[in-house]
Amino acid sequence: MTNNSAKPKVRKDTYQIFGINGVLSVLKSKNYQVQTIEILEKSHVIRNPEVRELLKNYISQTRYINHDTFYRKYGEKRTQGIVVLFSGDLAKTLPSFKKVEGNYCLLIVDNVTDPQNFGQIIRTAECAGINGIIISERNSVGITDTVLQVSQGAFCNMPIYSVTNLNQTLSQLKEDDFWAIAVENGIEAKQWDQIDYKGKVAIVIGSEGQGIKPLVLKSCDFQATIPMQGDTSSLNVSAATAVVLFERLRQIKSE
Amino acid sequence: MTNNSAKPKVRKDTYQIFGINGVLSVLKSKNYQVQTIEILEKSHVIRNPEVRELLKNYISQTRYINHDTFYRKYGEKRTQGIVVLFSGDLAKTLPSFKKVEGNYCLLIVDNVTDPQNFGQIIRTAECAGINGIIISERNSVGITDTVLQVSQGAFCNMPIYSVTNLNQTLSQLKEDDFWAIAVENGIEAKQWDQIDYKGKVAIVIGSEGQGIKPLVLKSCDFQATIPMQGDTSSLNVSAATAVVLFERLRQIKSE
Repeated sequence: MTNNSAKPKVRKDTYQIFGINGVLSVLKSKNYQVQTIEILEKSHVIRNPEVRELLKNYISQTRYINHDTFYRKYGEKRTQGIVVLFSGDLAKTLPSFKKVEGNYCLLIVDNVTDPQNFGQIIRTAECAGINGIIISERNSVGITDTVLQVSQGAFCNMPIYSVTNLNQTLSQLKEDDFWAIAVENGIEAKQWDQIDYKGKVAIVIGSEGQGIKPLVLKSCDFQATIPMQGDTSSLNVSAATAVVLFERLRQIKSE
Repeated sequence: MTNNSAKPKVRKDTYQIFGINGVLSVLKSKNYQVQTIEILEKSHVIRNPEVRELLKNYISQTRYINHDTFYRKYGEKRTQGIVVLFSGDLAKTLPSFKKVEGNYCLLIVDNVTDPQNFGQIIRTAECAGINGIIISERNSVGITDTVLQVSQGAFCNMPIYSVTNLNQTLSQLKEDDFWAIAVENGIEAKQWDQIDYKGKVAIVIGSEGQGIKPLVLKSCDFQATIPMQGDTSSLNVSAATAVVLFERLRQIKSE
C-alpha cells in the first residue's frame, strides 16, 4: 500500500475533453489543473490563434503525437486534433442564496440519467443565463466525460451543485425566497408561458421515463406543462428545458 | 442476375425501429409495410395491452426469439424487447401549399448532418404542431435508422419532404404566400421573440458548424437570433429549434 501511494494514480476527479470549443473553455478557466494536452502533429488546431496563445501557459504539459499513435488512441472521437486531461472539483457544495436579488434562476435536475441529455442541459442552461445547476448525488447521471464533452465547455461557466437530498434543498431555497417550478405534465399544471419566471426561481426538471420524484414534485409551488400538439407524448428533456429556460429569458427581456 | 432478382434482398427503403414508443407508432400507421416483428421471449413488452392488440394484425410477421439469440443480435440497443423491420417511402415529394390557410408552418432543415440532432428535430417539430419538414436531398443527413429511433416514432406523424434545391423550394413557398424566417445569428437578425410566426411561415435552420447556406439565407425574409447569455457561442441546433418552434406556438395560443 505504501508503495502504491507513492506512485500517483489517475485520480477519480480527472476528466478528458477534446475538440476546440471544450478545450478552450478548460484552458481559459482558472478552476482546473491541466495535466496533459495531447495534440496531433501537423493538425489544424495548432493554427488556431487562441489555442496557440493559451498553449504558452502549458508548455510542460503539452505533447505532440504522431498520426498513427494519435488515431490508435482517439480514432473514433471527434477530437479536432486536441485532447486535454484535467482535474478539479466539478461539483460544488451548495452555498446560501439568501442574499441574492433580482432575476436569479437555479435549475434542479432530478433523475436525468442520460449523459447526452445532461450535457445538452448544461449547455442550454449556460446559453440561457441560468445561475447554477443542482443535481442529486444519488439519483442523477453524475458528471462524466461524455457530459462535459456534450456541454461543449459550458460546464466551465456554469456552477454545478451536488446535494444529498433534493427535498431538503428545495425547502432551503424556498426559505431563501425562491419560487419552485416543476416542469411536469400534471393535472395542476399551468401552460409553460403562463408561469412567472422572474425573480428568484428554482426550475425542476425530471427524466423522460420517470419524471420528477413525487416528493420533490409536491414541494414545488407551481407546475409548468408544455402542451403536446401531436401524437408524441413528450418532448425530450433537454428540448423541454430549452423551451422553458428561453421563455424565462423572454419574460425577463420584456420587463 | 436473374437468380438474384428472384430472391428478394433487403430493400434500400427498409428501416429498423425498436422500443415501445417507436414500434407502436409504426404499427399504428397505415403508411408502412411491416416486414418482421422480433420479440424477446417472456419480455415485458408482450404485457403491454396496446402492443398485444396491434400484434393481432401481424401474426405472420411476428417471431419470438430466445434470450441468447436476441441479445446476440440486439445486445447493445435499448430495444425493450421488440424490434420491427419495415419499409415505406419516408421522404415525400413536395406538394403545392398554395391553398393552405391559417397558421401553417414548414421547417426547412439545411445542412444538418448529425442523425441525433435530426431525430430530435423531427420529434420536437411533431410536438410543436409543425406541418412538415423539408430536407435537401444533397446536403442533409438523410433518413437513417438512428434518425427514426431518436425521433421516438414522431416521423410517422410528420411529413418529410425531400427536395433537390432548397432555394427553388423557398422561392416557390414565397410565391405560395409563405414568409421565410432563418434562425441565424446575423447582423440583420431580430430577437427570436420579435418575429411574427403566425400565418404561413417557413422556418429555416442550419447546422451548428456551417449554418445555413448563404444563398438560402439570402432568400429569407427575416432572420431570428437567440441571444447567448454566457460564453458558449451557440445552442445546439435541436435546442434552438425547440426554442423557436415553441415561441411560435406561444404566439399562436395568444392570438
